[in-house]
This record gives sequence, C-alpha cells and structure tokens, in this order.
Amino acid sequence: MKIGVDVMGSDLGPQELLKACLRYVSEHDVDLAVYGNQEDLDTVSHPRIIKVPTTFVLTMDAGPLAVKRHPDASMVKAISDCTLGFNDGVVSAGSSAALLSCGVMISKMIPGIERPAFLADIPNTVSTSTVLLDMGANSENSAEHLCQFAVLGTAFAQTTKNIERPTVGLLNIGSEDKKGDMVHKDAVAKLRTMENINFFGNIEGRDVLNGIVDVLVADGFSGNIALKTVEGTVVAFNQMIKGVIKTNWLTFIGGYLIKKELSRMKDKLNYQKYGGALLAGLNHVIIKAHGSSNEEAFYNAIRQAHTLAAGGVVEKIKRNLI
Amino acid sequence: MKIGVDVMGSDLGPQELLKACLRYVSEHDVDLAVYGNQEDLDTVSHPRIIKVPTTFVLTMDAGPLAVKRHPDASMVKAISDCTLGFNDGVVSAGSSAALLSCGVMISKMIPGIERPAFLADIPNTVSTSTVLLDMGANSENSAEHLCQFAVLGTAFAQTTKNIERPTVGLLNIGSEDKKGDMVHKDAVAKLRTMENINFFGNIEGRDVLNGIVDVLVADGFSGNIALKTVEGTVVAFNQMIKGVIKTNWLTFIGGYLIKKELSRMKDKLNYQKYGGALLAGLNHVIIKAHGSSNEEAFYNAIRQAHTLAAGGVVEKIKRNLI
Repeated sequence: MKIGVDVMGSDLGPQELLKACLRYVSEHDVDLAVYGNQEDLDTVSHPRIIKVPTTFVLTMDAGPLAVKRHPDASMVKAISDCTLGFNDGVVSAGSSAALLSCGVMISKMIPGIERPAFLADIPNTVSTSTVLLDMGANSENSAEHLCQFAVLGTAFAQTTKNIERPTVGLLNIGSEDKKGDMVHKDAVAKLRTMENINFFGNIEGRDVLNGIVDVLVADGFSGNIALKTVEGTVVAFNQMIKGVIKTNWLTFIGGYLIKKELSRMKDKLNYQKYGGALLAGLNHVIIKAHGSSNEEAFYNAIRQAHTLAAGGVVEKIKRNLI
Repeated sequence: MKIGVDVMGSDLGPQELLKACLRYVSEHDVDLAVYGNQEDLDTVSHPRIIKVPTTFVLTMDAGPLAVKRHPDASMVKAISDCTLGFNDGVVSAGSSAALLSCGVMISKMIPGIERPAFLADIPNTVSTSTVLLDMGANSENSAEHLCQFAVLGTAFAQTTKNIERPTVGLLNIGSEDKKGDMVHKDAVAKLRTMENINFFGNIEGRDVLNGIVDVLVADGFSGNIALKTVEGTVVAFNQMIKGVIKTNWLTFIGGYLIKKELSRMKDKLNYQKYGGALLAGLNHVIIKAHGSSNEEAFYNAIRQAHTLAAGGVVEKIKRNLI
C-alpha cells in the first residue's frame, strides 16, 4: 500500500506536513510518496518515504487549463501516479478548486456520477457520526446531483460503516416535502422513488448534529454554510466557556474540576481531528486536507486516505452503484 | 400606541399567548388588541386588552387565495386593522407562509423592495448583535433581492442601533468576491457599486457569530440553514455540557461553581429570549413569533413589536430608502 502525499500549497508550509508524513510512516505499515520541491523533500529521510521532486505548485484558482499545462505540479503528479497504479490514494492540503480540477480531469468521475462532492463523516451528539456531502465542491447543484450524492453517501456508509440500509436525509429549510426551492422539492420527489435509497425526508439546520440520519445530503452551497456555521458556533462556544471559567476564583475552581471532561467534549467537536474530506464520485481515493492543517490534522488526513484505500472504498462504491 | 396580537395558530395554544399579553399590558403603557376565538378571549380581562373575536384561523399553507377568502381570520384582521390605522404593529405566532401572504397582500411592500425578508438582530460573541436577513421568508433569491435586503438591513441598523454607516456582509461559501453561485457573484459585484451600502464583502458560515459586520445579508435558503444550524449546535453543546457535569462528583461540584455564569452564557444564546423576526420590507411592523413560543418568548415578541412601532422604524426605513 502506497499513499501519494502532495506536501505543497498549504498555509503552514511543507515542513509541517512532512512532519506528519514522518510520524505516519514510523507508526504504520505503509509507504508514502511525497510530492514537492526538492529542497523541502531533502529535509526528510525515511526508508518508507519515497521522494518525488516536482517543480510547480498549482495556485488557488487553478482550473482545467492550468492542470493540463503543468503535468509536473505536485498535485497533478500525485494524482496521475494514482491513475497509473503507483499510488493507492492521494492526500493534499492544496487549493480545493485545483484539487477538484485535477480529480475530475485525471482520476475522472465514476460512470453515472456527474459531479464530485466533498464527503466527510462528522461526529454527532448521539456518539456516532453522520456522512455529510456535499460540503462545498459545488456552488450549485441540480436535483439529479443531489440524488447522485444520496447514492454515493449510501454506498460510503454501507462500505465504511457496515450499515445495511443507511437512512438518507436532505438538508432543507423545512421538514415537509414541499419545502425549499425547485431543486430541493424536485430532489425530494425523486429520492422518494429511488429503491436503493432509504430516504428519511428533509432535515433542517437544527438537526445536522442530531444523528437523525446516517447520510445527510446537501447541495454544495448549503452544506458548506451548515458545516462552517457548526465550526464557527463551536469556536464561539469554546471562547464563551473560557470567559465563564475566568469570571472569578470560584468559577476558576469549577473550571478546573470539569477540565478533563470538557476537553474530551471539545475534542469530539474538533473537526481538525477528523482529517479531511473525500472527493467522492471519483475513481480514486483523493483526500482534501484543510488548507490550514497542522501536523496532527494532516496526520489524520493521511490516516483517512490510508484507511479508505485499504478498505477498497472506491471499488465498493462502484459495485454498489451498479 | 396599540399593538394587534393574533393569538391563534401557535403550537402551545392561545392561552399561553394570552398569558404573555396580560403580563405585557400590566407592565407597559400600551394597549393590546387580541384577535382570536371568542371562547379563548373570554378567559382574559384587562382594561388595556381589547378583544376582537374572529371566526377563522389560517392554516399552515394558507396562500393569497385563503387570505382573500377569509377576511375574518385572526391574522388577516389583525393586519387589516393595522393598515386601517387601528393598530401600530402586529405580532403573530401563526404560520410563516400565511403571515407572508397576509403581509404582502394587506400591508404591501415598500416601493423599491420586491420581497419581504425575515429580519432578526441576533446576539454575537463580541457582546453586540448582528442584523441578519433573510432568515427564510424566501426559498430562492435574485442578486437584486440581496441588494434590497442590504438596503433594508442598513436602514434597520441605522434606525434601531444608531450606527451611521453599518457594515454589510454577504453570507457566502468563501470570502473572495468570485466565490459562490451566479446569484452571489452578481450580488457582490452590485453591492460593491452601491454608494449607500458600506459593503464589507463575503462572510463565511464560521463568521456568522463573530460580529464582523453589523448587517449580514443572506438569501432565504442559506440564512435559514445558518440560523437553524447555530440553534442546533447550541442545543447540542448545552446537552454535552450537561453530560460533562454529570460525569462524577468532582465535575458535579465544578458544574455547581460555574452554574450561574453558565446559565448567563446560555441565556445569551437563547434565541427564544430575543422575540421574533420582523417581516422587513412591508409598510407596517409585523413580527413573526416562533410557532412554539411559550409565554416568555411571546412576551418578548410583543415587546419587539412595541419597541419597533414606537421607534417608527418603518417610516425611518422608508425615509432612508429614498
């Protein structure tokens, strides 16, 4: 098993990501092919790290044209080596737009799926997790896309979480079937007729963390708004709790007494810990790590790529799609 | 000053809302005209409560036709009496769709505004509040609508919060101007050219509670998703904090020591306390209280209608729109 790691294009720089690579190979039975500038790669050395020096880094807004023009960009090469069979999966903390372009052009869409979706298995409050897609690969989706996301999410939950008939919800502005814009009304009607989908119905924003459904389908715009709003609210809450504890010496002692449990709770909602998002709908396991990933977050993204590739998730999704 | 109160159509029934009315008039210098079934109104008696018995309650999905057919519906009559000058504002916990139909048909849109928006001034973490609109009056919006919401929100912040040039943000899936779907890209371009709007730029979901801008404009779909996601995350967090405190006797003592400050913090994020949402863009102050409003929430919604009507907010908005 070999995972391709694009160490370029992240906010904290390649050294932070290389630290994660070193730690990962020293703890797991896997090879990592790291793609990036020669001088950065030169700083690490490990028998299970294969260095692939590249000479270009795709910019934030790299589109299909830039991908075609730069076969030697770290991201392009890592994914190309995946299609050539050299890598079993890829991780990158580079630009989402560029990764989407590379994914669609090089790995290509699974037949029957028109658009890739960012998929993540996010923790919920009932101590399980919810498969959420699309988290923002698309800024606009048709009803057909939403139905395809339901198929992808179902296959993902079946193969990675062993749920036979995962329930599927649609993120919408009301629970009744007729709520929302035309795209969502249309999608609900279509989802109700799909035999391979165990459709629960519409899910409102307030139930995103409730674990009501196994798979939550959203158009890329709403999914992105919902996920980032959860993140922002968690940050706000953590700040406010800090303020509560700092009020006076009694609250300070109170804070000390709940400290351990509180940080366990914070950990549960720390999405950084959960690695990255899968570009679902492509022919290979491609994981988008957060642009601001630190060593720990990137380590988890590598773990995710490794686990999904080792589990043969793409093959299983394809089989379930037939 | 007289506020019209539609006591029908809420989840907890008219008696709960009438309790709020009784408490409100006994504490404030205002008259309340209450609209509802005779037998319900008969249970209350106060010199400043004027009973207006009505014989019909608009259903959840009442559209323009139902409004035309039922001039004696509690909601229709309360708003009609507003346009006739008998009421200075209206509060209802009835169906949003019905209230929107009534508002647009009876109170009518302010010239230059095409769509009403649900507007609320929600608390943020920097101890101020953010004017958010639209929270879900629309399921789809054009770029022009978003620009009109910016004008409404600006006028609202100017008149109720005394901010001379309130900053305006647009809820979107990225901070750069070119992010989002065509509607949002187009709206950003238009907002940048509007002289009467102090446009800050796009705001992501994670910054909804940050207080970065004074006014946060959203299409009705995204605004609804964001607001409900905040609500859901707050509920989830409160549940988890309870779990933390219940872990063992040490955390129990810890919880006791921070109890007072914690409940102050929870209060701050308890949107029920903040009353309802203003149907912005109409010719009268019409407040939508939550369908599940209890006495306290409805009391706050009445207070909101009273305050906004007394402050002449609609007249000021109209003046600022010219």
